[in-house]
Amino acid sequence: MEELKLIGSKKSLFCTRIEWALKLKGVEYEYLEEDLGNKSPILLKYNPVHKKVPVLLHLGKPIAESLIILEYIDEVWKENPLLPQHPYERAKARFWAKFADDKVLMGSFEACKAQGEGKEKLIESVQESLGFLEKEIEGKKYFGGESIGYLDLALGWIPLCLDVWEEVGEMKLFQEEKFPCLHQWCKTFLMENLVVAKLSPSRETPVELYSTYIAYLRSLEANK
Amino acid sequence: MEELKLIGSKKSLFCTRIEWALKLKGVEYEYLEEDLGNKSPILLKYNPVHKKVPVLLHLGKPIAESLIILEYIDEVWKENPLLPQHPYERAKARFWAKFADDKVLMGSFEACKAQGEGKEKLIESVQESLGFLEKEIEGKKYFGGESIGYLDLALGWIPLCLDVWEEVGEMKLFQEEKFPCLHQWCKTFLMENLVVAKLSPSRETPVELYSTYIAYLRSLEANK
Repeated sequence: MEELKLIGSKKSLFCTRIEWALKLKGVEYEYLEEDLGNKSPILLKYNPVHKKVPVLLHLGKPIAESLIILEYIDEVWKENPLLPQHPYERAKARFWAKFADDKVLMGSFEACKAQGEGKEKLIESVQESLGFLEKEIEGKKYFGGESIGYLDLALGWIPLCLDVWEEVGEMKLFQEEKFPCLHQWCKTFLMENLVVAKLSPSRETPVELYSTYIAYLRSLEANK
Repeated sequence: MEELKLIGSKKSLFCTRIEWALKLKGVEYEYLEEDLGNKSPILLKYNPVHKKVPVLLHLGKPIAESLIILEYIDEVWKENPLLPQHPYERAKARFWAKFADDKVLMGSFEACKAQGEGKEKLIESVQESLGFLEKEIEGKKYFGGESIGYLDLALGWIPLCLDVWEEVGEMKLFQEEKFPCLHQWCKTFLMENLVVAKLSPSRETPVELYSTYIAYLRSLEANK
């Protein structure tokens, strides 16, 4: 076995992507769970810039930023390619992954946290972004086509987590009637794929986790 | 000539990257200057998501997001590779390009715009980020090694624009004595490379441009 370690946290959506990718590639790795409240010397040593998980350690060399780690994994282990082969399709997958992180993930989190007058506008903005993804997945099984690819992994937090944020943030933004194709993709992604299903955490912890975290962030803002 | 068009704006730092890359590759293209105050139907058609430049149109297909366009160009035209060959070096180049966009570029712009008590803290934060880049370039001619690569193009806004933002924002953050290696790189990048030098706009317009733009953004914030 090549020396391969993943510094991660079960609380991080960005780490699940990496575990999915490594399992899909059939690559063995050692998993090091990080206590985000008390960061380890190994995390601080290998990601001194952001001090964040995930960090992939391959033959002693660190790679950080989850979308960049996915590309690295795809370049090193060629089995079960994650990115499409054609440059234009690759560019599209990268475009939507960045878009989803910047607009849908961050947007949903901000909407979850928000209270009062700005909240509705944030929800509408996320829904507009989800509308673009709905169009992208229409008529396809996976974003990667017939099998799970880079963009599916990048978007995998949606079925894992968006309903949790809806509950914690007391909002509805991902209605099945508005986004039927995306909902179908969520089911296919989580249910029909053994690798993904096996690594998906239960819903109990996240609700509790995010309730506490969002309350903490709101209290910080209230005391500004 | 393959059908290749670049929708860009001389006012956008993100477009210069693409022009540099195409010139370095020796690829011919048609340049379409966009009026950002009155966006064209072609821009709205080909980048309906962000409605921003640059957009590269290759054989009628649009690619958006400047760092993603750079990867596309590198994958389609193999001459003069921009990204390194080794997956680890590729991951590092991608990491620093994202870091520089998120932390240095956005950070410098925020510091430029800021007034009053928060400004000094923003400047310190950018300087900390520049410190990481200083370490990265130490002992090297270019970030790409002996020739200009992806990361050099991604960071090319620094020699073009950072002194403009210092002037407009009435701040010093990129002192030569603090960042000698980065300053040396700036000179090499702009002066020693004909392709880069030829495409670099003069400093007059940017100062005027950013003064107006920053004043406008400040007025928006004051009226919130």
